[in-house]
Order: sequence, then C-alpha cells, then structure tokens
Amino acid sequence: MRIPVELKKSHRLLNHGPTTLITSAAARRRNVMAAAWVTPLDFEPAKISVVIERTTFTRGLIDESGELVVNLPTRALLEATYAAGQSSGRGCDKIAELGFRTAPATRVSAPLIEGCVAWLECRVIPEPQIQERYDLFIAEVLAAWADDEVFVSGAWAFPDEARTTVHHLSGGRFFLTGAQIQVDSPARER
Amino acid sequence: MRIPVELKKSHRLLNHGPTTLITSAAARRRNVMAAAWVTPLDFEPAKISVVIERTTFTRGLIDESGELVVNLPTRALLEATYAAGQSSGRGCDKIAELGFRTAPATRVSAPLIEGCVAWLECRVIPEPQIQERYDLFIAEVLAAWADDEVFVSGAWAFPDEARTTVHHLSGGRFFLTGAQIQVDSPARER
Repeated sequence: MRIPVELKKSHRLLNHGPTTLITSAAARRRNVMAAAWVTPLDFEPAKISVVIERTTFTRGLIDESGELVVNLPTRALLEATYAAGQSSGRGCDKIAELGFRTAPATRVSAPLIEGCVAWLECRVIPEPQIQERYDLFIAEVLAAWADDEVFVSGAWAFPDEARTTVHHLSGGRFFLTGAQIQVDSPARER
Repeated sequence: MRIPVELKKSHRLLNHGPTTLITSAAARRRNVMAAAWVTPLDFEPAKISVVIERTTFTRGLIDESGELVVNLPTRALLEATYAAGQSSGRGCDKIAELGFRTAPATRVSAPLIEGCVAWLECRVIPEPQIQERYDLFIAEVLAAWADDEVFVSGAWAFPDEARTTVHHLSGGRFFLTGAQIQVDSPARER
C-alpha cells in the first residue's frame, strides 16, 4: 500500500543513490524517462537536484509544467526501466508503450508509476542559469510516498529481490541494492 | 593498483550512487567528511555536483582551495566512513584520528584515501549563487582513478564484500552494492 512519507525524511528514499524514473506531464502529453543523476539536496524544506538533459522530451514537459515525479523502480521493473532510458517519448505515449500502469499524483499533474516502491512529487525551483548551463534542476518535494511493505518505519526493508531498488552502472548493467549493515554510532562506542 | 580512468567514463564511478568520502586541503590544514549527496553532472568535460553544508570545516577548506577529492570507501572502511560523518575536523587532523592513510593526488592538494576503490580529483566551477543558496557545488573532474582489481575494463566488478562500495541510508544504516544484472538492449531484443 502507498503510504505518505514525512517530507523531512523523504531524503531517505534517495540517499542510497537508486536509479529513478522521472514522470512529467504538460498540455495533455506525458512521459517517463530513466534518470540516475538524482540526489537529495536538503532536509527541510525537502529538496532534490536532478539532471534533465536539454535534448529530451521530458525537458520540454518539465520546462512547461514546472513539475515532475521521481519514481523508484525495482528489480521487477528493470527491463522496462532500462527501455525507458533508450527511447524518446516524442510522438508516442512511452508510458503506455512500456506497459507502465499509472496512478494520479496528489500535488502535481505528472503520474505515479505503479509497481514502483517510492514516489516524490516535486515542483521545480527556477534557477534558469544552472538549468541552462548544466541541465541541472532543483526541485522542492511537495509530497512523498512509499510502499509500506518495502519502506517500513522510515527505513528501507526490501522484502524480496523483485521489490529491491536498482542502481545503473552503464549500458544496461545494473546493481541491486545489497545487504544492509548497521554501524554503531562512534559516540556510543567511545 | 591505482589506475587512471578515462575522464569521459569517470561518471561510471559514481553512477550507482555510492556514499563517498570528500577530502580537502588548504593552508596546511586537511580534512575528510562523508557525503552521500554526490552525483555525476556531465560526461565531457566530466563534472559532478556535491552538497557541502556551510557549517562544515570542509566547506571552508573547499571555499579557500577550490578543490576536493571524491573517494569511494568500501565495506572494509565502513566504520571509519560513518565516523567521518559524525565529527568535525576543526582543531584536529580527522584523517589521522580515524586511521586513514593517504597518498598524494596528482592535480589537487587534497589527499587520496588509501583503501578506497576510486578517486576523483576535482576543481570547483564557481557558481556562487547556488553554493550560497543550496550548499551545492559543481566541480570539474581533473583526474580519476580506480583500483584495478575492483573496476575492471571500465566497469565495477567487486571481487569480495570487503572491497564493495556502500550506500548510506541514515543513522549508520548502510547498504552494500548488491548483485549485478545485465539487461539486454531493447534494440537488440526487437
């Protein structure tokens, strides 16, 4: 079930560096792209940074709407995730073509991808200079959600491989998020 | 052995979202901090973005020198990596106190941390507005290195758990980089 994540803890959804699917919508068009270059930027108000290359169809939709959703896909969605990074959404509905099902977001017009395990609804904070120079966007997180079987009590607890987040290396080579290790606080040790 | 990584492929060192150690040096002071909010920004010239909070000692050293090194620690360095994020380098040599050994970098004054599996020597591209507003720094990668037993033929190939990169969740909870999966190119499939 999709449950809300407290905004000031929403960085935990991205802190481990997973590959994401960015959805966008404007003027009755919508799209999905794969993006690995997404990172938390601040705790409160929660912000992220994301690279959206200027040649992409997504870029136009985000420039127009000022909104996006960061979706976290899983092992089960790996093939579709990679395919989302290999084709353009110009002239088609890439979301439908790749077989993604969607649900409406609450604060933005871009959709949520079903089967993902976390979602961050975001609004761009305009910084035209760095958008233009570096294709780098800063966005505020307006709402955050996670699958309550996978993100439990504010922490990732992947129940099986199919619902594990993924990390892209290059050329279709991915890593799954691996074993979890708890390091004791140095303050407690000493 | 530390071998050079072609700059236009250096994004592969960070693409899977590992937690890093940032080293810095200025005016005979040096420091190390842990940073998860580091991401590739461009292929050629290779650039990264990194969040360096304004309250940190590292921030002063980077503001002064305009340089930093992104080091990629491993499972074997996990306790020291977490400890590096829990204390300040003000008034001490945190690098020595945490037991890190260092080697000189080639293009910057900040040191390389021995036992890490990749290193990116970087020079800040001044963007005062976003540095001030968001603690966000953009830097060009001047030189990149990897351990040739761990990064082989331009791709990660972790030989054992001890030399696997790590991903911070929060509060000392980390993930190891997990199993590798190769997705066939959609172009080849169809």
